[in-house]
Amino acid sequence: MNRLTLALDVMGGDVGPRITIPASIKALENDPMLSLLLFGDRQQITPLLEKVPESILSRLTVCHCARVVENSQGLSYALRRSKGTSMRLAIEAVQKGEAQGCVSGGNTAALMGLAKIILQPLKGIERPALVSVIPTMTGEQSVMLDLGANIECSAENLYQFAVMGAIFAENRLGLVFPRVALLNIGIEEIKGYKSIRDAAEMLKNNTTLNYIGFIEGDLLLNGKADVIVNDGFVGNVALKTLEGAAKNVISLFKGNAALNKTNHICKPLFAWLVKKLFLKGSYQRLKQINPDQYNGASLIGLTSVVVKSHGGANSEAFAYAIADAALQARQQIPTKILAGLEKY
Amino acid sequence: MNRLTLALDVMGGDVGPRITIPASIKALENDPMLSLLLFGDRQQITPLLEKVPESILSRLTVCHCARVVENSQGLSYALRRSKGTSMRLAIEAVQKGEAQGCVSGGNTAALMGLAKIILQPLKGIERPALVSVIPTMTGEQSVMLDLGANIECSAENLYQFAVMGAIFAENRLGLVFPRVALLNIGIEEIKGYKSIRDAAEMLKNNTTLNYIGFIEGDLLLNGKADVIVNDGFVGNVALKTLEGAAKNVISLFKGNAALNKTNHICKPLFAWLVKKLFLKGSYQRLKQINPDQYNGASLIGLTSVVVKSHGGANSEAFAYAIADAALQARQQIPTKILAGLEKY
Repeated sequence: MNRLTLALDVMGGDVGPRITIPASIKALENDPMLSLLLFGDRQQITPLLEKVPESILSRLTVCHCARVVENSQGLSYALRRSKGTSMRLAIEAVQKGEAQGCVSGGNTAALMGLAKIILQPLKGIERPALVSVIPTMTGEQSVMLDLGANIECSAENLYQFAVMGAIFAENRLGLVFPRVALLNIGIEEIKGYKSIRDAAEMLKNNTTLNYIGFIEGDLLLNGKADVIVNDGFVGNVALKTLEGAAKNVISLFKGNAALNKTNHICKPLFAWLVKKLFLKGSYQRLKQINPDQYNGASLIGLTSVVVKSHGGANSEAFAYAIADAALQARQQIPTKILAGLEKY
Repeated sequence: MNRLTLALDVMGGDVGPRITIPASIKALENDPMLSLLLFGDRQQITPLLEKVPESILSRLTVCHCARVVENSQGLSYALRRSKGTSMRLAIEAVQKGEAQGCVSGGNTAALMGLAKIILQPLKGIERPALVSVIPTMTGEQSVMLDLGANIECSAENLYQFAVMGAIFAENRLGLVFPRVALLNIGIEEIKGYKSIRDAAEMLKNNTTLNYIGFIEGDLLLNGKADVIVNDGFVGNVALKTLEGAAKNVISLFKGNAALNKTNHICKPLFAWLVKKLFLKGSYQRLKQINPDQYNGASLIGLTSVVVKSHGGANSEAFAYAIADAALQARQQIPTKILAGLEKY
């Protein structure tokens, strides 16, 4: 692993530094070759660094700024007033070469807009997209895009997402000839928006891509496709729905709901049995679909790595987003996408 | 409970009579006041009725027809060639007053198209919608619409769905002043399609409706809203995603995966404990979100009850769809929606 510096917008997200600073410390602990530039309000950040050991502190730099892009700001307003905000400064640090990638949990539209202006899309890419790795029931992983960067998409946009997604899956997941599918409301050719049907025609005609057809929402977790392509509105709803459903069902099992119902005699035995037998099998597999581990969504199609964390991420999830950005920067995903675009 | 006759398209769905006939028998067993008209291929149906007792047989009538609307047919083609199909004959039976509602697991677009032509929308309704009851983690239920009848929707369409959904929730779920929300990719006013933002403005101005704002996909199961409104594409993807995620996670727990891992000594004890303690708590709650029990989606905004079963429904799920249609017909939901439309 090589040395790497990432720029973080520590003010982004629903909570801000109380989540992002502990996450930063966790990420630095886990990755000894990582350094971080933390953009945000020094007054809020400093108290959170009090008990942090010098070995960690030496790899982080607090870059004070007082201004923040708000979640409620519309795109054009946010862009006009973005100068000196933690989000913009983090992106600018990448543009200046001070960092090799950046992470923010802030306003998605503003992050996308600023990244497009400051970091520029790769040659040939009309619209960068938000992509995420999702787990499957088969123990594998898929990638899904767009997840909210582009609300409405043309057939050409969806086609480019498919190409970028395939390259991302090849590199990030190490897949050969990944299977690409379009998310739709049926598998028949006549189903769905015209943009999806037209994108399907374009994908069929490209034999260097392994296009397998339409996929429906109920099979998103079943490993039927390695790359799932959709517009940003539908993708965002589907991913959040997936996470919500998984979290809800898992919450029925996690915690002590079942244990608390047992009486005093049975309790220790039951606890042991559950731990030894039940947790070993099903629970381990459930952990694979813990949304925390799949927090980092990436803006791809840009010249550098930009990772968007969930606004509501906890510190563990935000730490995963940082680790994801570090991995992508080390894998030089943007360079590989650029090279791949010429292949397809 | 009063006497009731429903018309079934037993050829619809991925499997046809092998699912729909056992489902019909189940529905007749559970509801002694129900009679069924079964539209489909007598050759396929008759062998499935061999061992059925006379008390059930006397309440079903096989109405032979050889033609079927295929799932792969486009809407206009399906409509042009719909004469004499099991789906069309079932709908016509309702129009003629021979049945008080109908159920089909066939081509959704064709069902919607035929129902609109033959049964007519209620006065003032521009587009009927597909609505379904969904379970919540709090043990309550919500309704969600549209689920695939209308791929792209205007603000006015969404507004009408909200009104119909509220009336449906009042009557079908017995709720007073149900909370109405629009599905979106964020809760801020600036988020999502223009049609959604415009519908939000219209709903805010109607004080007879309890409009509570936007809801995101991750909270669909959390009982935050009683009526969740979206266009048919997004709703279809979200509902299927929800069901797929729930089914997948439940499948990790159901079956004997955990039991099979135990050794011979522990097995009976573990099985007993799981059954007594675990199943009693969490599993009972999980059963609430078993998609089989939520199979029936209804076309509302029409003059009669039309229930659409999942194409992939098993016989238990299809039986639930029949029971749902019977309940709605007895509750006279179409009449109540018509009356409610004047209130809002």
